[in-house]
Amino acid sequence: MQKLLIVSTSKIHGSAYMEYLLDEVKDFFAGKSEILFIPYARPGGISHEEYTEYPRKAFEAIGLKVRGIHEFDNPVKAVEEAQGIFTGGGNTFMLLKALYENNLVEALRKAVAGGTPYMGSSAGSNITGLTVGTTNDMPIVYPPSFDALQLVPFNINPHYLDPDPNSKHQGETRETRIKEFHFANTQPVIGLREASWLRQEGKQLTLKGPHTARLFEQGKSPREVEQGDVSFLLG
Amino acid sequence: MQKLLIVSTSKIHGSAYMEYLLDEVKDFFAGKSEILFIPYARPGGISHEEYTEYPRKAFEAIGLKVRGIHEFDNPVKAVEEAQGIFTGGGNTFMLLKALYENNLVEALRKAVAGGTPYMGSSAGSNITGLTVGTTNDMPIVYPPSFDALQLVPFNINPHYLDPDPNSKHQGETRETRIKEFHFANTQPVIGLREASWLRQEGKQLTLKGPHTARLFEQGKSPREVEQGDVSFLLG
Repeated sequence: MQKLLIVSTSKIHGSAYMEYLLDEVKDFFAGKSEILFIPYARPGGISHEEYTEYPRKAFEAIGLKVRGIHEFDNPVKAVEEAQGIFTGGGNTFMLLKALYENNLVEALRKAVAGGTPYMGSSAGSNITGLTVGTTNDMPIVYPPSFDALQLVPFNINPHYLDPDPNSKHQGETRETRIKEFHFANTQPVIGLREASWLRQEGKQLTLKGPHTARLFEQGKSPREVEQGDVSFLLG
Repeated sequence: MQKLLIVSTSKIHGSAYMEYLLDEVKDFFAGKSEILFIPYARPGGISHEEYTEYPRKAFEAIGLKVRGIHEFDNPVKAVEEAQGIFTGGGNTFMLLKALYENNLVEALRKAVAGGTPYMGSSAGSNITGLTVGTTNDMPIVYPPSFDALQLVPFNINPHYLDPDPNSKHQGETRETRIKEFHFANTQPVIGLREASWLRQEGKQLTLKGPHTARLFEQGKSPREVEQGDVSFLLG
């Protein structure tokens, strides 16, 4: 049974890394003693070692050990043997390029199909979709493809931000950008506001957290999706 | 002599398309009766025909005719024979992919090297840099490379936006994103605020408009660059 936790952000304002989500993480990885952390998105360019300390410290409180994938000689084997997997946020292009370079795209798909629970935050959530075409990140490196892990049949826009009605800025709003995406792509896009997440348990997909989500479908007006059962998104 | 007009935005709040820049455009294309418009960035997914009407109407006021590149059978020849060139804004990935598909990257480099004045706005400015790695746009299509026209030895960030000190949003600021760019890339990045532009005439590069610009260099703190002569950026 496919188990996913697709999280918009690792941190909410005024709260420590993952603090707001600890109960959910504990429940999601119930029965697991150790998870594999994929730090390739390197937020702010920090090292894999530094980055791995974030979840390591955060998940101590719920009795979950964390090992970084860079600590293993064979990253594919590390994925195959992991009890659970967590991919952190940062730069989506950096992350996706590293996944391809380490032959992990296929390995992750197989592990998740085999029932290994996968949690992603921000960039780590973005890659659960069909493509990375709705990332907010700058294309700082060139990946061999924009195809992502394709664990769900839609695209994710993490850190979804509503348009500011008072802005005089002429740059595109997030909504405008996602509409442009639909001139070249057909899949739905789910805009996950900060502190929102999706949890999948097999055929059941649930939107959790304090906010509704914004759903963008090609040729339709964007609309709000309420918290609770959103399994219709699985098609 | 290489002549460039690298413009942050086509429009400022409360003013019509290109209205704020008409004097500069008139001076830049002095002596030319017609310019070639490249509408490939398709803002909001509008058609080439619709998009070309924007500069056509705007530049009527300064006696400059506009023809869209889609009106020509041979786009390479259209670039070779153009008196002047203007590439409009929209989605940078869509633009760059279309330039490669139409064999226009090399054609544009040659035309500009031969003295054809080139003006770009937003995405059309972004592509004058070394790569599109500092675009703000979503990667809605996959171009064969992130290498841009490389008319200047740095990267452009158009619509540069200062961090909002009151924001509680956890998504990266523009400054953070550009810093991340420098973990993977060495070239300087110039953040051009809206209503700012760069004008190059051979070895002379000038920052114009009401704002200073923000310069990001690898391994250094970002700093403000005053209006006026910024030829040092040409290296």
